[in-house]
Amino acid sequence: MYDEGMPKPSLTDEDLARLSRLQIELPTWGFADTGTRFGKFLQDAAAVTLEDKLDDAAEVHRLTGACPSVALHVLWDVPDGEAAAVRSEATKRGLRIGSVNPNVFQDQRYRFGSVANASPAIRARAVNHLLESVRLASELGSNTLALWFADGTNYPGQGNVRRRKRAFEAALREVHEAMPPSMTMLVEYKPFEPAFYFTDIADWGMAYVHARKAGPRAKVLVDTGHHYPGQNIEQIVAFLADESMLGGFHFNDRHYADDDLTTGSIDPARIFRIFVEILSAERDAGSDLPIEYMIDQSHNIKPKIEAMLQTVMTIQELFAKALLVDQEVLDDRRLMNDVVGAEECLKSAFATDVRGELAGWRRSRGLPESPLEAHRLGGYEARVAVDRVRRKAASSASYA
Amino acid sequence: MYDEGMPKPSLTDEDLARLSRLQIELPTWGFADTGTRFGKFLQDAAAVTLEDKLDDAAEVHRLTGACPSVALHVLWDVPDGEAAAVRSEATKRGLRIGSVNPNVFQDQRYRFGSVANASPAIRARAVNHLLESVRLASELGSNTLALWFADGTNYPGQGNVRRRKRAFEAALREVHEAMPPSMTMLVEYKPFEPAFYFTDIADWGMAYVHARKAGPRAKVLVDTGHHYPGQNIEQIVAFLADESMLGGFHFNDRHYADDDLTTGSIDPARIFRIFVEILSAERDAGSDLPIEYMIDQSHNIKPKIEAMLQTVMTIQELFAKALLVDQEVLDDRRLMNDVVGAEECLKSAFATDVRGELAGWRRSRGLPESPLEAHRLGGYEARVAVDRVRRKAASSASYA
Amino acid sequence: MYDEGMPKPSLTDEDLARLSRLQIELPTWGFADTGTRFGKFLQDAAAVTLEDKLDDAAEVHRLTGACPSVALHVLWDVPDGEAAAVRSEATKRGLRIGSVNPNVFQDQRYRFGSVANASPAIRARAVNHLLESVRLASELGSNTLALWFADGTNYPGQGNVRRRKRAFEAALREVHEAMPPSMTMLVEYKPFEPAFYFTDIADWGMAYVHARKAGPRAKVLVDTGHHYPGQNIEQIVAFLADESMLGGFHFNDRHYADDDLTTGSIDPARIFRIFVEILSAERDAGSDLPIEYMIDQSHNIKPKIEAMLQTVMTIQELFAKALLVDQEVLDDRRLMNDVVGAEECLKSAFATDVRGELAGWRRSRGLPESPLEAHRLGGYEARVAVDRVRRKAASSASYA
Amino acid sequence: MYDEGMPKPSLTDEDLARLSRLQIELPTWGFADTGTRFGKFLQDAAAVTLEDKLDDAAEVHRLTGACPSVALHVLWDVPDGEAAAVRSEATKRGLRIGSVNPNVFQDQRYRFGSVANASPAIRARAVNHLLESVRLASELGSNTLALWFADGTNYPGQGNVRRRKRAFEAALREVHEAMPPSMTMLVEYKPFEPAFYFTDIADWGMAYVHARKAGPRAKVLVDTGHHYPGQNIEQIVAFLADESMLGGFHFNDRHYADDDLTTGSIDPARIFRIFVEILSAERDAGSDLPIEYMIDQSHNIKPKIEAMLQTVMTIQELFAKALLVDQEVLDDRRLMNDVVGAEECLKSAFATDVRGELAGWRRSRGLPESPLEAHRLGGYEARVAVDRVRRKAASSASYA
Repeated sequence: MYDEGMPKPSLTDEDLARLSRLQIELPTWGFADTGTRFGKFLQDAAAVTLEDKLDDAAEVHRLTGACPSVALHVLWDVPDGEAAAVRSEATKRGLRIGSVNPNVFQDQRYRFGSVANASPAIRARAVNHLLESVRLASELGSNTLALWFADGTNYPGQGNVRRRKRAFEAALREVHEAMPPSMTMLVEYKPFEPAFYFTDIADWGMAYVHARKAGPRAKVLVDTGHHYPGQNIEQIVAFLADESMLGGFHFNDRHYADDDLTTGSIDPARIFRIFVEILSAERDAGSDLPIEYMIDQSHNIKPKIEAMLQTVMTIQELFAKALLVDQEVLDDRRLMNDVVGAEECLKSAFATDVRGELAGWRRSRGLPESPLEAHRLGGYEARVAVDRVRRKAASSASYA
Repeated sequence: MYDEGMPKPSLTDEDLARLSRLQIELPTWGFADTGTRFGKFLQDAAAVTLEDKLDDAAEVHRLTGACPSVALHVLWDVPDGEAAAVRSEATKRGLRIGSVNPNVFQDQRYRFGSVANASPAIRARAVNHLLESVRLASELGSNTLALWFADGTNYPGQGNVRRRKRAFEAALREVHEAMPPSMTMLVEYKPFEPAFYFTDIADWGMAYVHARKAGPRAKVLVDTGHHYPGQNIEQIVAFLADESMLGGFHFNDRHYADDDLTTGSIDPARIFRIFVEILSAERDAGSDLPIEYMIDQSHNIKPKIEAMLQTVMTIQELFAKALLVDQEVLDDRRLMNDVVGAEECLKSAFATDVRGELAGWRRSRGLPESPLEAHRLGGYEARVAVDRVRRKAASSASYA
Repeated sequence: MYDEGMPKPSLTDEDLARLSRLQIELPTWGFADTGTRFGKFLQDAAAVTLEDKLDDAAEVHRLTGACPSVALHVLWDVPDGEAAAVRSEATKRGLRIGSVNPNVFQDQRYRFGSVANASPAIRARAVNHLLESVRLASELGSNTLALWFADGTNYPGQGNVRRRKRAFEAALREVHEAMPPSMTMLVEYKPFEPAFYFTDIADWGMAYVHARKAGPRAKVLVDTGHHYPGQNIEQIVAFLADESMLGGFHFNDRHYADDDLTTGSIDPARIFRIFVEILSAERDAGSDLPIEYMIDQSHNIKPKIEAMLQTVMTIQELFAKALLVDQEVLDDRRLMNDVVGAEECLKSAFATDVRGELAGWRRSRGLPESPLEAHRLGGYEARVAVDRVRRKAASSASYA
Repeated sequence: MYDEGMPKPSLTDEDLARLSRLQIELPTWGFADTGTRFGKFLQDAAAVTLEDKLDDAAEVHRLTGACPSVALHVLWDVPDGEAAAVRSEATKRGLRIGSVNPNVFQDQRYRFGSVANASPAIRARAVNHLLESVRLASELGSNTLALWFADGTNYPGQGNVRRRKRAFEAALREVHEAMPPSMTMLVEYKPFEPAFYFTDIADWGMAYVHARKAGPRAKVLVDTGHHYPGQNIEQIVAFLADESMLGGFHFNDRHYADDDLTTGSIDPARIFRIFVEILSAERDAGSDLPIEYMIDQSHNIKPKIEAMLQTVMTIQELFAKALLVDQEVLDDRRLMNDVVGAEECLKSAFATDVRGELAGWRRSRGLPESPLEAHRLGGYEARVAVDRVRRKAASSASYA
């Protein structure tokens, strides 16, 4: 009796079509050296220039066919007046610019906050950078402004919560107004780090309120690592979807805090359940939800491109498993309060090995069955390392 | 230089007037035997009947002068058709009925949820109980409907998050419509327990969205024990206050989860900072915020009345310390980004010993300087225990 | 290159033999009604008497062939002088008594602790119960004394940590001395609940120190739900195994605290990784480790036997996946610091669908391919419910 | 009745003598610029050279009289062959070298671990650095080797838990053997960061086992920020004290993870309770416990010296409050299970304002009543900033 329709025996053509529409955006910063406050560990093949990053992203897209866009970090990736050149570099590699990420946290001026700074001059400077990012995004051909703010305080008393909140409201409204009609603003939340007493946009609720006030094209950005211990992320995802406020994801995994580990490396069932919620909402909506799927990880000790390929393949596997859930059977069992039966709908889909089917799907699309293996065999990393090491040696850059 | 105006050397008359307006509601269930899932520990003096509970609440109010109202649990405290009698019993003791708490979690029918149950019949039953509670509240002279829902699921797949959310929206709107104009609906949130996969109203964000949709008289109820590890409660409080959505508190303390320990027993600085945020908002508003301050604790091993008195005294102390914060000096230091100086404004007020001043303030109001000591000396507990033990022995009630 | 040896293409005969030796102990209390402090939800088919519980355990063993022993709770399951009868009842059903669990937490006398109570008389009473449990265990044919203590405090100041610790040392030593040479003492740890300030044996370190001091046959019992948010359980398991101090498991799953959900329902990868560590230690040891695998769950809303069957099947699946890890390839990759490659060894095994192989393995042992489906089809639950409901109605028992 | 002896009305001469013996070690790295992985915020007055750091430490000691020793970081502070010079620089400023901290985490070679690295050569290199640090410590006149290891892994499968554990055992034993009889080894634990799947010495239990195996002069180092959410630190402290395994503290505070905030800024009651446990153990021992009290904070946005002074003053205040606890009355109440009364012993001491008494105590020792105020008025920071800014500008160092 448990076998009937549970799970669907294999991915249907419709499932594979949906999977083919799942595009995963790559962050340029995921190809560069990263670390913790205790230091960066350097890799010979790590990207140095924006061109390197685009090369690497193109390699990932070439092997997966699923990553046509890259997320840019304004400060790190787009030199003054170079937006057109950046866009053209991307296009040359078969890529487009996805989300544009302003940076109002790195400059020494933002030590005590950006948009929520006590100083009107610094607030204005931060807002100007955001407005400039809107313009840049347009020039870059991007429709997505992804906003993460490090604003917050480290000590009780340091900041006025409500005054800072109102500063955020004003700033986001101003930026929203400046956005062209086609642009979406994504508001990210994060409980802590680098601020340790409070972050101004600490949780999904604050991001939701701020996005609502900013305007109709502001949505919430869910970074899977930005939650408190025990928070049920898939519930938040479903809740936001029902409010039409789910704008996108920064995917990664974690064991403790914002560890920025490879997606699905620690708790793959969690990512699976997030996809189950999204597909359930899409089933009710009758169409794909307009969600940006982005990777945001810190590959401190993994080879950058390998980590990216592993991530894309894992996301596809978990998405495919979620597609296997028979939502109709699931609903029936829910209505009967058959707790075990409903749970088995999910467990059974999750237990199904979809790797063979995905290999075939890739082959049929002219892609290597295992992008990770193809990459390892292809020698790309060794090849670029030679040149990058030479260039790094030539530069006088030192590292903290 | 650090001494100037920091903190205010002592409580002003205005401060004491504000402190005198701080009314703390007592929950009837805090006087009865409580426990954990591993069993209840019984106390001779624990209240058995509603009359006992009202007697105990009256004793606390007699000694503190700060607790004129009691929160009722509809199912446990108000027998059918007895609202007028209950109200009269309270009045006789110099008390009034504060918040009215429906109960849609105890009945076996609610095993799979109340308002979010998959069954329309059970949903209707739950909503009817809520509507009946509105009527009862009116009869009891109460203006506050306090809603806590145990609804949630234990397993992935078990429930449809979005369908359940919509059921909540419909139910709360219906109840809000039935409320008289003078009544406030408080929507409580809680991450888990008794549901262990998700609770339908899990955090302040969900309570906020539901309250907004229910209607203008619905606000959020903050239980200090209903947060994830690391969540900054005072920030949430300030955020809600700024949204005019902070309706009330259930005070208690915790080390781990919803431990329901005595307020301020584990982290007194936290409660102090919550009061600092409220007083800051009141300063800007120019008036007291309309917030219900309620105790919600589980005195498993402490004598019930002692625990209540200790709680009221602790809340008053921490509120008085918060009154000592010189918000003007604090603001100046914030504007200068004097992090240490701003923090010292809070630390200094917190370090001040206000017990002597509070003793004098109580004396001036005809109250014992130490309500706890007066209670211990007064012999109330021993006295009521005799009768209560006798009555318990006479009843055939057994306990799990 | 990633395909070589990773994972082993299927379970070897040796793997299946290891799987066949995996015996999972059932707790009698898992068949009875359970709940939270907010109430118990009652099930018609829930076991009432010890005979019911043994019947249910026998049903699970009949269908799985993997659960020949049951864990008893001395206070609930073994009436005075009835040990021989209990043992015989088990034997009649093809079962044996596994771990014996004393109960020094339920009696009102233990309100302020058992073995760590400030009162010498109550301490002695508790120790006597433990010694009596040792005797009972012998009579019951059990070789395992499983000790969980609810001892702890709710408030700062309440207890003297060091004095309580020494009381535990003395008690455990005394009990250890009284154990026959064949008996193992398992010391369980738990951070909180029902104590909310501290539990005397709060973490694995405290259990380790106490077990070391008690004597050579005392080991640590790991309950998978008894950890802090973020703790890496598989690391603790490996650490204890290396110290020859890993005595056994209480399996369950959790999202927040000690939720006692079905094993693998929330984070199946976690359980898988625990098994990978155990199998790695067994590979080095050249033999199975002497570990007691026990279930300890609270099936509040799931049918009891279904939940048990689902748990056994899930444990077997995750154990089988762990068997698929090619530890040799894994070690090679570790030595090369091939982080991605080493991780893929685990991911690949985890992704493999072993349900078909397990169905075949069960069939070859004369068992139903799906014990859960066989149970649902068999009608056992409906059958026993009739009689149990009748008996419950006849008794005057009330429920909190 | 609650007034009798509770708390002691004021600090006795004996209390003040104990307070005077409380020496708090300053970390050189606490005077330099620090940050998060998102960047460092630079301060004009931040120390650049070891001489700067010693100057700053001397300023703190001059104002507090409580900080005669400084902790050194071998790699950052002691150039090859310069130990004698470093020692002499300290002596010139009235300071001595306290704990010596090896660094086996920063070099690129330690990317995959130091002492637990899979490579024998890198393990040997790490052990050599530790042995060299022992020699250096002797030359520096230090008796304390403080060991923190960043070793750990980021991904499941990456490392062999048990093999790494054994590598640690071997290394610590070798280092312990090389230590002169007067030297103490402190083994620190930390759950995560920079490793995100597991840290090899993740909790106090692992540090305890490793210290026990290393030898009799190895003890556990408790960093107050290195715990899981909800862990009861004061219980661990008392437990370790009872095992004679409590070697020292790294003081700081936190809201979320290892935030390295100023001690007592977030949860002052926690630090107070830690001191209560230590003083209780000292009372039983009849003497001070041999514990190293060290500060380990990251003053990202606070002026470095101000933060240090604030920390020392806060520690002294909380220690003084702990001295006020009447341990005799406390014990009586514990024996009577007077939970409220016992708790009030702590609450009452904590509520007492000791700042006036501490001001007098400082004055009597020839120190400023408020070291923080004296420092602000003294102009030290502005003075050193001039020179330091000039030197920084002259150097070509860049910062990440």
